[in-house]
Amino acid sequence: MPVADRNPVLDGRPAYPLLIVISGPSGVGKDSILIRMRELEVPFHFVVTATSRPMRPGERDGYDYHFVTRERFVEMIDRGELIEWAEVYGHYKGIPTFEVRDALASGRDVVLRIDVQGAATIRRLAPEAVLIFVAPGSLAELRHRLEWRRTETREEIDRRLSVAQHEMEALNQFEYVVLNRADRLDEAVDQIQSIVAAEKARVHPRRVVL
Amino acid sequence: MPVADRNPVLDGRPAYPLLIVISGPSGVGKDSILIRMRELEVPFHFVVTATSRPMRPGERDGYDYHFVTRERFVEMIDRGELIEWAEVYGHYKGIPTFEVRDALASGRDVVLRIDVQGAATIRRLAPEAVLIFVAPGSLAELRHRLEWRRTETREEIDRRLSVAQHEMEALNQFEYVVLNRADRLDEAVDQIQSIVAAEKARVHPRRVVL
Repeated sequence: MPVADRNPVLDGRPAYPLLIVISGPSGVGKDSILIRMRELEVPFHFVVTATSRPMRPGERDGYDYHFVTRERFVEMIDRGELIEWAEVYGHYKGIPTFEVRDALASGRDVVLRIDVQGAATIRRLAPEAVLIFVAPGSLAELRHRLEWRRTETREEIDRRLSVAQHEMEALNQFEYVVLNRADRLDEAVDQIQSIVAAEKARVHPRRVVL
Repeated sequence: MPVADRNPVLDGRPAYPLLIVISGPSGVGKDSILIRMRELEVPFHFVVTATSRPMRPGERDGYDYHFVTRERFVEMIDRGELIEWAEVYGHYKGIPTFEVRDALASGRDVVLRIDVQGAATIRRLAPEAVLIFVAPGSLAELRHRLEWRRTETREEIDRRLSVAQHEMEALNQFEYVVLNRADRLDEAVDQIQSIVAAEKARVHPRRVVL
């Protein structure tokens, strides 16, 4: 899917849309980063994840997530409509294939947010994807963020924190790491934008086929 | 030469200074880019090239270049004091080894500007260097820039333009390409800074040994 010539002197060298995967441990702030990027109107296509979990206050269906019933989710699995899915903390989450394919076909760079296990699957399916691991400023910050969210019970927070520590070990399978420090969200967003800019400046661009 | 831990949760992962090579055809504006980066006080060490060519108006010895005599330059070659050198248009140009080594040892990222042939040498000596090719917005812009400089004769400009077209073919040996369009110098500088930021965000950092 070549998009556009980059420059006349670069003799018709094609550019390809990127598939940018934002991952990292639970509670690290992946959602906050994506919300901020959308506010900034960066020209990416943001893939909307499907989930069977209940909507949280302030969330919008079809924007933050596609909120679907468990029955509908199982149907999507059965029909092979998801690139990747997982059951996490009793709820389904998954990436609809058509969302990613359509966006890449339109030539826009595609951003998707996914947990650490899901990122490994994307990497297997699309080795040319740009894998970014979002790390917390510290584990204390991570706990604070989970507590502040107030959607989980104490036991859930403890469980998530222990899972998060385990998830940190997946870092080595990623290409880039971005710190999401407390009160410094924009630094994380800037870094992601730098990574995207650098990837677009590659002489030998990546080409994602899905 | 580990520099600093990046973050407590990243368990003492070391960072290494980068060796950033800014190259591209003659007249593309490599010097302008470096001057602008210095004005912006980006925290890099800028390697000062040694040259036997005469100083141009506004240039400062030891800052823009080390201006040396042909005799002194030949002595530097004989003593193996240069990482790389070339005789271009009748003048010597070369990179003093100590400049690069000292800067890397101090932990700062090192930027050096070098012609396309020299970049190939650096790549051989330091495969972990970040090679950036600066391309002109168009060949007409390149000619304009060479004419505007007014330091070359008509024949020299024609010769340089033809060399520049040949030099464009080296693009494929580079990792990144940045366009330096007329009147959009800051875009080129921003792109270089994005590339550096992305390289610093690598989970598996490059380590230059020289």
